[in-house]
Amino acid sequence: MTKNSANLRVRLPALIFALEVMIIVLYAVFVTYDDHTNALLQTNMTKPMENAVYQDYPFFADIQMMIFIGFGCLLSFFQRYGFGGMVFNFLTATFAIQWAILIQGFFHFYYDGKIHLGVINLINAEFACAVVLISFGAVLGKTSPVQLLVSLFEILFEVPVFGVAEWIVVKYLKINDAGGSILIHVFACYFGLGVTFILYRPSLNDGHSKECTSYQSDMLSVLGTLFLWVFWPSFNCALTLRGDDQHRAILHTFIGLSASTLTAFALSAMLNKNGKLSMADVQNVTLAGGVTVGASVDMMITPAAAYALGMLGCTACMLGYKYLSPFLARRLRVQDQCGIHNLHGLTGLISTVAAICELQELIPGLKAGLGRTAKEQALYQLAALGSTIALAAVGGMLTGLLLKLPYLASPSDEFCFDDELFFNVPADYNQAPVAQDLGCTETQDKHVLDCWSTTVRSE
Amino acid sequence: MTKNSANLRVRLPALIFALEVMIIVLYAVFVTYDDHTNALLQTNMTKPMENAVYQDYPFFADIQMMIFIGFGCLLSFFQRYGFGGMVFNFLTATFAIQWAILIQGFFHFYYDGKIHLGVINLINAEFACAVVLISFGAVLGKTSPVQLLVSLFEILFEVPVFGVAEWIVVKYLKINDAGGSILIHVFACYFGLGVTFILYRPSLNDGHSKECTSYQSDMLSVLGTLFLWVFWPSFNCALTLRGDDQHRAILHTFIGLSASTLTAFALSAMLNKNGKLSMADVQNVTLAGGVTVGASVDMMITPAAAYALGMLGCTACMLGYKYLSPFLARRLRVQDQCGIHNLHGLTGLISTVAAICELQELIPGLKAGLGRTAKEQALYQLAALGSTIALAAVGGMLTGLLLKLPYLASPSDEFCFDDELFFNVPADYNQAPVAQDLGCTETQDKHVLDCWSTTVRSE
Amino acid sequence: MTKNSANLRVRLPALIFALEVMIIVLYAVFVTYDDHTNALLQTNMTKPMENAVYQDYPFFADIQMMIFIGFGCLLSFFQRYGFGGMVFNFLTATFAIQWAILIQGFFHFYYDGKIHLGVINLINAEFACAVVLISFGAVLGKTSPVQLLVSLFEILFEVPVFGVAEWIVVKYLKINDAGGSILIHVFACYFGLGVTFILYRPSLNDGHSKECTSYQSDMLSVLGTLFLWVFWPSFNCALTLRGDDQHRAILHTFIGLSASTLTAFALSAMLNKNGKLSMADVQNVTLAGGVTVGASVDMMITPAAAYALGMLGCTACMLGYKYLSPFLARRLRVQDQCGIHNLHGLTGLISTVAAICELQELIPGLKAGLGRTAKEQALYQLAALGSTIALAAVGGMLTGLLLKLPYLASPSDEFCFDDELFFNVPADYNQAPVAQDLGCTETQDKHVLDCWSTTVRSE
Repeated sequence: MTKNSANLRVRLPALIFALEVMIIVLYAVFVTYDDHTNALLQTNMTKPMENAVYQDYPFFADIQMMIFIGFGCLLSFFQRYGFGGMVFNFLTATFAIQWAILIQGFFHFYYDGKIHLGVINLINAEFACAVVLISFGAVLGKTSPVQLLVSLFEILFEVPVFGVAEWIVVKYLKINDAGGSILIHVFACYFGLGVTFILYRPSLNDGHSKECTSYQSDMLSVLGTLFLWVFWPSFNCALTLRGDDQHRAILHTFIGLSASTLTAFALSAMLNKNGKLSMADVQNVTLAGGVTVGASVDMMITPAAAYALGMLGCTACMLGYKYLSPFLARRLRVQDQCGIHNLHGLTGLISTVAAICELQELIPGLKAGLGRTAKEQALYQLAALGSTIALAAVGGMLTGLLLKLPYLASPSDEFCFDDELFFNVPADYNQAPVAQDLGCTETQDKHVLDCWSTTVRSE
Repeated sequence: MTKNSANLRVRLPALIFALEVMIIVLYAVFVTYDDHTNALLQTNMTKPMENAVYQDYPFFADIQMMIFIGFGCLLSFFQRYGFGGMVFNFLTATFAIQWAILIQGFFHFYYDGKIHLGVINLINAEFACAVVLISFGAVLGKTSPVQLLVSLFEILFEVPVFGVAEWIVVKYLKINDAGGSILIHVFACYFGLGVTFILYRPSLNDGHSKECTSYQSDMLSVLGTLFLWVFWPSFNCALTLRGDDQHRAILHTFIGLSASTLTAFALSAMLNKNGKLSMADVQNVTLAGGVTVGASVDMMITPAAAYALGMLGCTACMLGYKYLSPFLARRLRVQDQCGIHNLHGLTGLISTVAAICELQELIPGLKAGLGRTAKEQALYQLAALGSTIALAAVGGMLTGLLLKLPYLASPSDEFCFDDELFFNVPADYNQAPVAQDLGCTETQDKHVLDCWSTTVRSE
Repeated sequence: MTKNSANLRVRLPALIFALEVMIIVLYAVFVTYDDHTNALLQTNMTKPMENAVYQDYPFFADIQMMIFIGFGCLLSFFQRYGFGGMVFNFLTATFAIQWAILIQGFFHFYYDGKIHLGVINLINAEFACAVVLISFGAVLGKTSPVQLLVSLFEILFEVPVFGVAEWIVVKYLKINDAGGSILIHVFACYFGLGVTFILYRPSLNDGHSKECTSYQSDMLSVLGTLFLWVFWPSFNCALTLRGDDQHRAILHTFIGLSASTLTAFALSAMLNKNGKLSMADVQNVTLAGGVTVGASVDMMITPAAAYALGMLGCTACMLGYKYLSPFLARRLRVQDQCGIHNLHGLTGLISTVAAICELQELIPGLKAGLGRTAKEQALYQLAALGSTIALAAVGGMLTGLLLKLPYLASPSDEFCFDDELFFNVPADYNQAPVAQDLGCTETQDKHVLDCWSTTVRSE
């Protein structure tokens, strides 16, 4: 406790202030307004209503809802780690966006010696932020009690690696990935798995007494899912071409999500014991379709194909939770706390393959602008997938190694999933029953296993 | 329990997969892109920013919030049926929209042998979905433990009947009903009452021990009300003419809702014992104004008239909860669980009459496009009202009869309003006190009656 | 209780109906449609898509979310006053907006003998409503059990005084205050402090047993913060010039909020005992940056300056909670329940000073339209600040005196912060443990003090 106290009271403020000083200096030296925010570049001919803000801001606002409210609620599913889930999501998202504005700025918005800033940069930074939040899912609650520091350090390393991957994929390989299935979801997944591989904790394979949900935390988490579900079309279409491309992206995302939602209910009833639905499935598996349609979301794939992709992605995701995650945890030392490999990895791979198949049909069609044959484009897509996975996994593992440095001393297992280490908790916090107080002591092992497999599903 | 288990584990997946196969086949055969989503129909002259998506998507997103988050939270007001309220709303809405895309597609968007799809179809489908969710309010929690199947079956029948009503009213009678007061609210109400009339359960007239709210569930439910309240202007204006019509629709809806909210607080304090406010009133009666302004929402009715309609609708709704619902339940076998007859039926009728009165004043004025006199148009409006009620009530009763088929065996009363039949519940679920555990055993009958009358108000 | 019962059962409805009659009469006599909502003013040349509704409605909807959902959740942080926080926010906001439509209408939208109404009026009214809700923070839960009446009376007086201040500042002094830091935040703060100064309750300086939060109420309150955070850019830019000004306003607000969020986490860990984070800090202090950038939000201040303003505002706000609020409460009789002087007062002052500094640099530059030198404009800004504070404080104190009239008899201290006086509460309400039941009886004084200082921070 003293150690933790010192960490938070001294090291957290010290780290944050250092980061803030760094950011403000970089802002002062390098960041200026872009053509749509600089008053000096407006002339008598400029029509105010044609400012890019009116195209970009609505999508930005929708994605803000997903990042801060959707993710925030979704991640507060632990009974005794609700503050942590929602509030650390707030902190990490805020920092990740600021950092991404700079990193992506140097890669994509840098000319005349300056990073040029408008709402479009913020949208891009929110995508980088989504990458960070997704990969955090692999280690949620496991890196306490210095998790706060860890989070900020992880962001510090993850965002630049993502910047490199983005630059390779978008600028050099010029692949189709409108919804970010490869860049965002696959990258985030393998980065997170890389980190958790290094931070392996054998004892957590047997479950943890505080790893349960409560009735209220499950409700809040589903609410988060609904926010993500509702605004996912905005996420998938924000960076596509204006006009019919963007229109199709919205349509396909909606159809894909609808298909995966229906499928998730069917599979949840079918695969859980007694035919009862699992809230964890409702919270996660319903969203699989949003990822699966990603890489081909703006193409002319037909609505039926979007529907099929949603069903397929959901099925892969569900089977992954049921069979692959326990295998990864036990055999490959990959403890994937929120199952991001199922919701973002497997679905991202399916999406990549689907986009390649679609390209075979469509080229030589509308999109041959790059002068590549269908086969060539397919190879480029595969190269993008491969390099994304490689960069992400290596970057994740290196980050994991840095996090093991003695200065960031790892917590003992018992301190996981607990708000009390970080927060002044209200008086009723210690009244909430935990697993072993609920009359399950004699069958605690079994109960915890159930609890673990229901909620976390890496067991 | 075994029976229920079999139902969910085998029949639910079987039913869902069958529906999905049917949908995907119909999508593959009949659904294609419309002029704004089809890349092949864009030319060099097409301006991307004039794509319909930029007019339709913002309203679509707002209505999504209402359907998935607003309704989802509002319906989770039962203490032990919160998962059911929010999650089954998610499932039924998702399925209803998919099904409505097809049914409405055949009625409204079918030409050249195909249904043509854009975001505008999704908006229409969300309206059909709202119909389904409203009418479900009549039977919420009462049809368990096979409610899931029942829900999906009910949608299967309700959407096509609604499609017919919509076709008659919009295409043939050409009435004024911009906010859908007749088509959506009145139809949904009488369909739901038709179903519940057939599924009558005498014993529930005496209340049910699990039919209470909790502090947290009441909070969440009010949050749902606020989401509906905030986005209702988008709902009422989404399908009106662009320009000043849409502008007026927003204004009138806001004014109507404001008036009904103030009135609801006054009446709640006045009519409840001890002058205490009832959360059920705050959750429901405040919204009455949104329905009452519906049928004349885009007309030049004046802001004061919108205010008066809000007050009037709210008063009718409140008196309905207090006096009409108990009467309907005891004498007419119509057990209206959420009081949809008050919030959607009575207010819809008022809205219809108000629109007729307005038309008498306005024609021969701006809107004589159809070559009808004011009186003729009034008769058409009445015809629309009559045929909507008739179709809805008959359709609802037939659906109720289908739901009584032996295959869908009705649950015994004690299994109502309980999440545990459907979900793997967290360990703290069985710790939440229910009515009879709260020291009310000696006065249980009274307590339950109170609880029933406060929360559900059909007693 | 009998007294309270009479107040609510008779006086509340009587007051509301009287207000409604007044409003509807004024609407009928004075309110008509504006150029964008009046069908009679549209010609063949009118392009529907150029209607002002398409520029205004998206911002209006965002601000609605802040007012009804953001504030509603934020204010429900008390363990036993959650209904009160969320529901009374709903009531007061609804009434404040209706009243502001009339008052502001006479000041700003009145010509040809009529108030002309469009969505733009609603946006303005929401700003007035924000003023009311902020100043209520000073007396939250303290004016029960006649708080409902009190609230409505307070609005009745506050909105016109605000109208006068607005008229002086905007029409006469013509100052820069795009985000409303002076007009909205400073006015609201000093009005609220004026009221609470008159309603001083010495005994509350020692804390109150029901003044604690619970785990769930803290979660909900953070959720409210997140909604305010996400939509604050819309609030700060809604009334700026279209085009690059609006674009910059969004950017600066986002950057300012991000900086203040990071800083809030650092300071919270640094200043709270054991280095633990306080949820009250996360709920309030993170938002300081949104106010601090307000007065110069549309200027060319540079992103780095926005960042610095965010950090500065957050630091002032945090130190205010820690050191200034207890001083104000003990020495100056100003009990500032939610600490509005920190979040809105100090930050508003900083924002005013920052805008003056910026003006010195920018003029003679882009904005010299008024033919004033930089120094002259600075003096006008100071005059605006001074007259705003004076009007607000005097208006607030007069309102406080009116609220002390015998008819509105003040409640005894023990009846504060309690839902049960106003609501039919669910059966589990009395099961929730309060402070003294949580094993803190022996150390109750200390506990309550902690609780008070953590949650409310005026101690």
